[in-house]
Amino acid sequence: MSAPVDDVLVAFQPSGHQARVPRGLTLLDAARRVGADIDSICGGRRTCGRCFVSVVEGALHHAGVDPLAPSLSPAEDDELACAARRRPGEHGRLACAARVLGDLVVDVPANSRARRPLVRKAAGERAIALDPAVRLRAVQVAAHRLGEREGDWQRLAAALAEQWQIRPTDIALPALRGLGAALQAGAGFVTVALHHDQTVLDVRPGFSDRALGLAVDLGSTTIAAHLCDLTTGAVLASESAVNPQVAFGEDLMSRVSYVMMNPEGLTRLQQAVIEALNRLAHAAASRSGASSGDILDMVIVGNTVMHQILLGIDPTALGAAPFTLASHAPLDVRAAELGLRLHPAAMVYCPALEAGHVGSDNVAVLLAERPDQADALTLVIDVGTNAEIVLGDRAGLHSCSSPTGPAFEGAQITHGQRAAPGAIERVRIDRVSGVARVRLIGDDDWLAADAPATASGICGSGIIEVVAELLLTGIIQPDGRFAAADWLRQRFGAASAHWLREHAGRPAYCLLGAAQTAAGHDIIVTQDDVRNVQLAKGALYAGCRVLLRQRGATRVERIVLAGAFGSYIDPLYAMALGLIPDCDPAQVRAAGNAAGDGARIMLLDRASRALAATLARQARYCETAIDPAFQEEFVAALHLPHATDAFPHLAAHDMLPTVIHAPRERRARRQREGL
Amino acid sequence: MSAPVDDVLVAFQPSGHQARVPRGLTLLDAARRVGADIDSICGGRRTCGRCFVSVVEGALHHAGVDPLAPSLSPAEDDELACAARRRPGEHGRLACAARVLGDLVVDVPANSRARRPLVRKAAGERAIALDPAVRLRAVQVAAHRLGEREGDWQRLAAALAEQWQIRPTDIALPALRGLGAALQAGAGFVTVALHHDQTVLDVRPGFSDRALGLAVDLGSTTIAAHLCDLTTGAVLASESAVNPQVAFGEDLMSRVSYVMMNPEGLTRLQQAVIEALNRLAHAAASRSGASSGDILDMVIVGNTVMHQILLGIDPTALGAAPFTLASHAPLDVRAAELGLRLHPAAMVYCPALEAGHVGSDNVAVLLAERPDQADALTLVIDVGTNAEIVLGDRAGLHSCSSPTGPAFEGAQITHGQRAAPGAIERVRIDRVSGVARVRLIGDDDWLAADAPATASGICGSGIIEVVAELLLTGIIQPDGRFAAADWLRQRFGAASAHWLREHAGRPAYCLLGAAQTAAGHDIIVTQDDVRNVQLAKGALYAGCRVLLRQRGATRVERIVLAGAFGSYIDPLYAMALGLIPDCDPAQVRAAGNAAGDGARIMLLDRASRALAATLARQARYCETAIDPAFQEEFVAALHLPHATDAFPHLAAHDMLPTVIHAPRERRARRQREGL
Repeated sequence: MSAPVDDVLVAFQPSGHQARVPRGLTLLDAARRVGADIDSICGGRRTCGRCFVSVVEGALHHAGVDPLAPSLSPAEDDELACAARRRPGEHGRLACAARVLGDLVVDVPANSRARRPLVRKAAGERAIALDPAVRLRAVQVAAHRLGEREGDWQRLAAALAEQWQIRPTDIALPALRGLGAALQAGAGFVTVALHHDQTVLDVRPGFSDRALGLAVDLGSTTIAAHLCDLTTGAVLASESAVNPQVAFGEDLMSRVSYVMMNPEGLTRLQQAVIEALNRLAHAAASRSGASSGDILDMVIVGNTVMHQILLGIDPTALGAAPFTLASHAPLDVRAAELGLRLHPAAMVYCPALEAGHVGSDNVAVLLAERPDQADALTLVIDVGTNAEIVLGDRAGLHSCSSPTGPAFEGAQITHGQRAAPGAIERVRIDRVSGVARVRLIGDDDWLAADAPATASGICGSGIIEVVAELLLTGIIQPDGRFAAADWLRQRFGAASAHWLREHAGRPAYCLLGAAQTAAGHDIIVTQDDVRNVQLAKGALYAGCRVLLRQRGATRVERIVLAGAFGSYIDPLYAMALGLIPDCDPAQVRAAGNAAGDGARIMLLDRASRALAATLARQARYCETAIDPAFQEEFVAALHLPHATDAFPHLAAHDMLPTVIHAPRERRARRQREGL
Repeated sequence: MSAPVDDVLVAFQPSGHQARVPRGLTLLDAARRVGADIDSICGGRRTCGRCFVSVVEGALHHAGVDPLAPSLSPAEDDELACAARRRPGEHGRLACAARVLGDLVVDVPANSRARRPLVRKAAGERAIALDPAVRLRAVQVAAHRLGEREGDWQRLAAALAEQWQIRPTDIALPALRGLGAALQAGAGFVTVALHHDQTVLDVRPGFSDRALGLAVDLGSTTIAAHLCDLTTGAVLASESAVNPQVAFGEDLMSRVSYVMMNPEGLTRLQQAVIEALNRLAHAAASRSGASSGDILDMVIVGNTVMHQILLGIDPTALGAAPFTLASHAPLDVRAAELGLRLHPAAMVYCPALEAGHVGSDNVAVLLAERPDQADALTLVIDVGTNAEIVLGDRAGLHSCSSPTGPAFEGAQITHGQRAAPGAIERVRIDRVSGVARVRLIGDDDWLAADAPATASGICGSGIIEVVAELLLTGIIQPDGRFAAADWLRQRFGAASAHWLREHAGRPAYCLLGAAQTAAGHDIIVTQDDVRNVQLAKGALYAGCRVLLRQRGATRVERIVLAGAFGSYIDPLYAMALGLIPDCDPAQVRAAGNAAGDGARIMLLDRASRALAATLARQARYCETAIDPAFQEEFVAALHLPHATDAFPHLAAHDMLPTVIHAPRERRARRQREGL
């Protein structure tokens, strides 16, 4: 049976869609007719350059077809101009311009698909589909003729239905206010920003492909914001800042107390974080040559207290059992209602929470790392002032939030600071002299004795290493106490004068002398600093242990360390100090800011929002604040280090010196003696 | 076949629902089971007193039933207490308390039905169904138990689904913020305000039946607001005020010009009206012992320019053909987004518009008067600065908005004022002496010569009468000009000194001497005043004529005069002056503020909102601003009076003196002479 002479066969790769279509149809129309996915913002006006495709030559040259006849119409001037502008150096055709004249096979590259995979740089492997909640669509709106009663909005909606098969139900008031002027300035040709294809958020004259989104990880101590181009998925800028709420209390419970004790407390805390977000949005937008007003969508993840304060909801009920959330469901809020100065119709998405103490940051970690798809039992740890911990594999998920406190972020440490150039991130202490060598963030090598005075403080990974090294050198004991000054002087001799200090009546350790610090004073580690690290590591380890107990497992196969901290930490030191359970070091991976990545995924792929809500429901959570198992594990985990025989990988490592056993023996003796 | 012994037969009047139900069920549960409509806010907690019913004694006492056995359980203390509190002196039973023990017939009075008819006082006949968009529902919410992850909102939604079969999809942020505290204060028992059963707007501890709504007729010159109890439909207070936008321009087009000429013009006009609405809401609420914060819903009707300025939408495109609306669709907006200080989650409904110059006030008139259901061809005129005119019957509707200007509202008249106590509303001029008698609003009789000086100005109906009387007395001529002063002195002799004045070089008429006015100066009618009345009446009459032409009719059978003006105007004078087409005076009726009534209907009966939108689509509209027929009719209608032979009813009335013919003859002569 021969096909009608005016039909041609068009096939699209790699999707495999194919059908006979009328000769003369554009490739874009042909793709829509057969259901193949080709992106377009301008709606086929040879403007946006999203629909570039290439023709697989001769693939369909079969018997009866003239192999010399062209299968596509030649490129015209506007197509060539668009090609030069949008994809210089690339070969291909605009699907909206090229008309099919003969049978052919078309290759649709990933960049030309509406739903296209974005490679996550941090994880290095996961793909994010680009299908954001806010999308741009260019349309030609019919002019209003006298005697027609349809308003501008009705004619815009009709154009979207006809040209895009999109039927929005609603238009935001700011967009309605700007609609008439945009239609006039664009002579009816406008670009529309749509939220879930339902609500028009913005209308601009002419063609535009500027639509920005902001993904935010709202931590108790640190706020990280990533500005994304919603039309390409690219991260344009990342900014972070200290959460100004720290002025009202370092940890979550002190902020909850502040709200309880002060009538204006909630308003103050909310205003503080809203203003910080406004500053971050402004900074990120400025850095990429845009304005906060270009930001149309925002995803904010955070723990449950941060989530409720952000929304102006009293977090008091989260401060005591039964830890009642106002709502665990995802929330779409207007940015303006929160006082956020973005686009006047911008939306803010606050993803689902898991439970009273397990927030949307944990859900974001689940989404970024997808342990539910892992074959190996995986532990994901996102360390902040609260550590978000997830344990799971295909068989199920367990999660909790553990109150580590801000020590690992460099806070509540005498000379602690956030991870930034100038911070001490690596520490080695000579076992004989007790003298330290340090390495600063941004430097390639250990700090020379005559190096300029640039060191400014100790960041989280430096804190871990110095405490581990102090322990390994015997300067502190497994219970965290500094050895007596006399004993130290006796053991390390004259060298001890280099580093032995006194602070609040107790020995302290000088990591770097005043001559080598930017501030011009010694950088020291005090007894309180060690205590804070003990509390933090105890909470983190206990959280991991509780999830292992819930799962009924004794050890994990993979560990993913997320967060800025996870990127800098040396897993061996983390294991030496008993922060994390023992694991093959080859199976410990840094994943960057997993919570922020999860927020970014929800910003760029709207389907992931529902998936996140589902994962939040699936994960079995542990309320560490009242779980007796957690308390038990926490107390057991305060000592340094955790029993080394539980760490076969660590024990095999040559870094572990024998000195570590002496204090353990002493502790065992003291326990026998009832001390 | 005998019924199971534990079933009883319950029948509800007047709906006729009946069924056998288990013995011991409450009447409320029985009603729900059989589908009979009984109101309840408290959900059967013997609190709200909405579900009072009476038992029709003995109606089912048939063979085999013991006529002495009680058919209902006896009233207990809480029922008696509720009865005494809510319906003192009324007999009946609480349906939620009384349990059925035997067969019976129950009468459900109108007040106890959820959808109950409200009699519209002004029209005296139309019933409004009470089924508002915002309703209250009391629920008992389960306490949060440790280990459950559901938030407060999820447990509230579950309670609403279980106890009310209502499945809200959304909770407003202000309500979510107050949810936890309300649940705590009410020990889980709370009253919820729901918008269309979809969005929770408010949650309060315990039982509450306080839900207010505000219906507003936003006129160019006057804003009228009616505060309604959404649970009873009662009008609690009515307030009106001058639209402060008059400071920026008396008529619509001058306000549009103001917006065009001033960069801040739109914002200023919007702020002015928003602040006026805030003041009216506050005043109306205070007057009824409530607060603006109790107002949960608002309906605002107005012409298209008022509508767009209210929403902050530039009205410039309404100032010139093709008169483009931003949107003709109804709009639900958050009050807070407009700057209205009502309940923080209050909604504002702006009903559908008809077309560029025919606004939601006209739609409200359609809804209030329903000319589409009339057998007789009915003309509905709502006079304001723009007259909303509707002509129709079952065969179809025609509508227009006519730019009468504010003269009929007492503005642009030298001593004009709004209809209020002290305003001159009735005028009779002695045909021989030319001296006037007047009657003031609030007085029962004509003003005595020695009456205290309380007169403050002339209101719309006074303006009509004085101009008609001046015409009938021959003091002004059919073209509206005052007769020459010399001629007047000659004709009225010495008496003319009482009333003949000069203003801006032309004769003027003194209606009331300074001694009898509150301001202590003469109340006069100037040549410009007469001109303004001519322009107003010409526009009004031309609007009516254009609709008659569109309909292909020559005369109307009924006239409904709406608005405050319509309540005071003497239809004979309106016909004498040629404001309205001729009609049997017995068929002319005042309907009060029809636009305001329409707004109130939409506030109280949510189904009427969709009906209004449908009527708006059905009405054929006329753009008077560019209709050549309107211009033609307008020019023809400027003369006073309109040809009396077109007014058979008026000609038959003894009020019409012969003097009216003299000027007509003179005019005819001048026309013959080419003057």
